[in-house]
Amino acid sequence: MYDIAVIGSGPAGLSAAINAKIRNKNVIIFGQAELSAKLLKAPKINNYLGFPNISGKKLAEKFSKHLQSMGIEITQAQVKEIYPTGKDFGLYVGEEIITAKKVIIAIGVNFGAPILGEKELLGDGVGYCATCDAPLYKGKDIIIVGQGAFAEEEVKFCTEICGSVKYLPTYKLAEDFSIPDAEIIQDIPKEITKAGEKRTLICKKESYVADGIFILKQNAPPEQLCKGLALTGNHVQVDGNMETNIKGLFACGDITGLPYQYAKAIGQGQIAALYACND
Amino acid sequence: MYDIAVIGSGPAGLSAAINAKIRNKNVIIFGQAELSAKLLKAPKINNYLGFPNISGKKLAEKFSKHLQSMGIEITQAQVKEIYPTGKDFGLYVGEEIITAKKVIIAIGVNFGAPILGEKELLGDGVGYCATCDAPLYKGKDIIIVGQGAFAEEEVKFCTEICGSVKYLPTYKLAEDFSIPDAEIIQDIPKEITKAGEKRTLICKKESYVADGIFILKQNAPPEQLCKGLALTGNHVQVDGNMETNIKGLFACGDITGLPYQYAKAIGQGQIAALYACND
Repeated sequence: MYDIAVIGSGPAGLSAAINAKIRNKNVIIFGQAELSAKLLKAPKINNYLGFPNISGKKLAEKFSKHLQSMGIEITQAQVKEIYPTGKDFGLYVGEEIITAKKVIIAIGVNFGAPILGEKELLGDGVGYCATCDAPLYKGKDIIIVGQGAFAEEEVKFCTEICGSVKYLPTYKLAEDFSIPDAEIIQDIPKEITKAGEKRTLICKKESYVADGIFILKQNAPPEQLCKGLALTGNHVQVDGNMETNIKGLFACGDITGLPYQYAKAIGQGQIAALYACND
Repeated sequence: MYDIAVIGSGPAGLSAAINAKIRNKNVIIFGQAELSAKLLKAPKINNYLGFPNISGKKLAEKFSKHLQSMGIEITQAQVKEIYPTGKDFGLYVGEEIITAKKVIIAIGVNFGAPILGEKELLGDGVGYCATCDAPLYKGKDIIIVGQGAFAEEEVKFCTEICGSVKYLPTYKLAEDFSIPDAEIIQDIPKEITKAGEKRTLICKKESYVADGIFILKQNAPPEQLCKGLALTGNHVQVDGNMETNIKGLFACGDITGLPYQYAKAIGQGQIAALYACND
């Protein structure tokens, strides 16, 4: 049982993690070793006080060093769903359930634009969690769209259960990539349609038919991540302490709304952590 | 007419200033060359992401460099009062009035504990703005309690108008300090009492009688700084955009409430600036 689980390794999540750690809490933080793709791509940042004219890459290095100096390691796994028990939280991480007293959501807003038909067919042959639903597709044919290397473990797992697995990566595969039992599709997904029990993934070059289609995003959108979470548009509602409508569940950074800025995210991460540290 | 006036040179005010400047606004920031006494005194800060285990002094140097790199200079003057005109703002600064379209208050919460009787007699022979009220004491005797070197200009000004000026500094005077026409008192103020037209400053060693007593604080408390500003306790009420109940007047940092933390203050300074930049 962790004291605090932080989901997301952008500036908000990192700030939450260091602030909770300083308060001597047992913290786990889920994210990516490279921290934040958005941060890495920023050519020049000049509005985070103390770092004039720094590149996103350099700033990410500073953040990494801060984590290292405090012995914080990022757990590179995807949290599929958060279950509030009323007393604490269960987090579905791969095939494991991890428990935490408090949870801080700092997943940003970059969920990728949905494919046409994706939202309409969600839960009806289309899903975001292949690991969770793979047993329903035992011996059946599935297509997985993966938005990053984080998806590959899940694809591998599905090849052990499902009849056939087609994998469509929307990122550049590593040179040494290999999942022997998955068929790799190099195409651009456009739309998902339904015909009886079958679902069709219409791509730029070709169309593919299967029993189920999974779209694996770095982060599930918040309404998928935790049922009952109150939103305003795509943003999670929070109070002044960064607590959501679910007691013990906090949010910070871009996911809570505009402006999408580092200093703001870092400040909110701190607030979320400090209030999450209160019993 | 400035686009944005920032009052306070702690982390919140500095963050507001750099963020407004990046948006190409004509910004003036009031504060101290040493930025923030509280920051300078912090032995070790470990919860501002990117700067593991840094001293307050080192962090203040980083902040100063950031300001310099952007050509932001701190105006070392005290804002006595803010007058909202409905369209913009007038700021009483010494004997000048400076105008700004938007104002951001980032004065922190360190107003010093009031002396016994100070609050009760405020406006009744006791004031926070000697410059403003000196004409009322033409030829009369006043006592000025100064909480920092910033007060000395005001003392000098009063010696030109008032009958006599006693100056009680609650800080260490510079070796080359000199205001020829003021009598320096080295004592510790305890209480202010009223007897007819006279006010008595009761100190640890002795008592002093005058027609008026001024207490010059680095920052006036917010209720003095701007009439009609909505407070909760000692804190300024703000909405999610850090705007106060007065349109165009923003607040950020400690003055808006707990937690009193650098990252939070810096994040809020950014939010205040970005919304103040909107027309």
